[in-house]
Amino acid sequence: MNSLIPYKRSVYYYETDKMGIMHHSNYIRIFEETRVDFLVQAGMPFEQIEAQGVLMPVLSVECRYKHPLRFGDMLEVRPHITKFNGTTLHVSYEIHNSETGELCAEGSSSHCFTDTNMKPIRTKKNYPDIYKVFADYIVQ
Amino acid sequence: MNSLIPYKRSVYYYETDKMGIMHHSNYIRIFEETRVDFLVQAGMPFEQIEAQGVLMPVLSVECRYKHPLRFGDMLEVRPHITKFNGTTLHVSYEIHNSETGELCAEGSSSHCFTDTNMKPIRTKKNYPDIYKVFADYIVQ
Amino acid sequence: MNSLIPYKRSVYYYETDKMGIMHHSNYIRIFEETRVDFLVQAGMPFEQIEAQGVLMPVLSVECRYKHPLRFGDMLEVRPHITKFNGTTLHVSYEIHNSETGELCAEGSSSHCFTDTNMKPIRTKKNYPDIYKVFADYIVQ
Amino acid sequence: MNSLIPYKRSVYYYETDKMGIMHHSNYIRIFEETRVDFLVQAGMPFEQIEAQGVLMPVLSVECRYKHPLRFGDMLEVRPHITKFNGTTLHVSYEIHNSETGELCAEGSSSHCFTDTNMKPIRTKKNYPDIYKVFADYIVQ
Repeated sequence: MNSLIPYKRSVYYYETDKMGIMHHSNYIRIFEETRVDFLVQAGMPFEQIEAQGVLMPVLSVECRYKHPLRFGDMLEVRPHITKFNGTTLHVSYEIHNSETGELCAEGSSSHCFTDTNMKPIRTKKNYPDIYKVFADYIVQ
Repeated sequence: MNSLIPYKRSVYYYETDKMGIMHHSNYIRIFEETRVDFLVQAGMPFEQIEAQGVLMPVLSVECRYKHPLRFGDMLEVRPHITKFNGTTLHVSYEIHNSETGELCAEGSSSHCFTDTNMKPIRTKKNYPDIYKVFADYIVQ
Repeated sequence: MNSLIPYKRSVYYYETDKMGIMHHSNYIRIFEETRVDFLVQAGMPFEQIEAQGVLMPVLSVECRYKHPLRFGDMLEVRPHITKFNGTTLHVSYEIHNSETGELCAEGSSSHCFTDTNMKPIRTKKNYPDIYKVFADYIVQ
Repeated sequence: MNSLIPYKRSVYYYETDKMGIMHHSNYIRIFEETRVDFLVQAGMPFEQIEAQGVLMPVLSVECRYKHPLRFGDMLEVRPHITKFNGTTLHVSYEIHNSETGELCAEGSSSHCFTDTNMKPIRTKKNYPDIYKVFADYIVQ
């Protein structure tokens, strides 16, 4: 996972709320952007996974907010695959402010793999290419 | 159209931005909520239209902002079907602050009707029930 | 908390994603809507809290997804104040599909209380009215 | 304006709707992202404008949808300042699919300049630096 380039973008104006900070729900969306970016870097864009009829619904998310991000702040996220057994995936995230280095939020998400009818599938046997992408990046 | 009950809801916290007002993009979403509510009132919920394989993609939207809405404000929208010929639909909207009566925004959207492959369809001939819903409410 | 009317609304079209279900990030927003509705029911609308210079930033959120909600589904949320000591607040949520009764998601959020400079405050001493609202509804 | 680098980013998963395309409301948000990017390129980031106590509320927006964008598509926007007199600003936008070159949407927004109490201000006299930024980029 060390070889991954952190996902970066700045905070959009419409992501702020009347407290003047990025609304807390948007961090969950940034986790998703980070997963999408990871898959591009790993050579298996999410579009390719879906093109094979495989969906990755979210089973759970959680986020702890440490320091607010504000409009225009550049954020930087490092994803870590903490668990993966071919049927369930756990990813953790650390969102930093790129300029200050400050840890702004940390969280995680878990996912299963299903066909387009939302029936669970085992990637190891049936989709070895998809399996390999995640297995290769498990944090030791 | 006079028989329609205006669509009402309050402004959510996450819809505000750092100016302390509802972000302008959300009015476009409220137009959509208003169309959905109109169809429920007209006896043809949008789910029923989609269940027949008919989509209503948006061709255009426009909105003019008159007075800001803030967190917790109750808004009230009246939709008007200004044009409809079975293939294209024009709807206009007036968003008022329910408490003050003030006009906060006015706008419009236009739509076509397509099958699930995004091919245009004529509702008058092929979906007379859908046609009737909109035709009945054209503003004279 | 039994005296509270559950918070209800239907799923908006723009809340769905290409899987055809409500995007998982929106549940976090519904938790917020539910807190806002609770405060209205408890007689202390959030606007009144902010008018006193008190903010309630989110410290953490988590959500477990059990069953998808789709466009037009009516959802129903029951909030529970599980912990409150005047400086930190824990709320849990159960989102059900109103028609089927099915549990769709459950989660929680934690919050602190700050002044407008984001400095923590103790509500018990300085804002007894705010303190009382939450204390009255702690789940026994 | 020819010297500007077009604003680019890919479509996020959460921006899609159940039709499988980017929801139409998000184009209005992309217009805002484009304005913010323009100001960075022009050497006067929006944060610097707000730091001087100047706000730029949106007076109107409109968008015409030509061709859908889908999850993962790279989009590219060129902004054009079509009118500016120091008190009102008109910007037009063309959103293209970067890979195919296809025009996906075109639209515009208009803005005024106000102080933090939402009172209109004239930039030419009172904020010549802000005035210059926009005046320099008016499309001839």
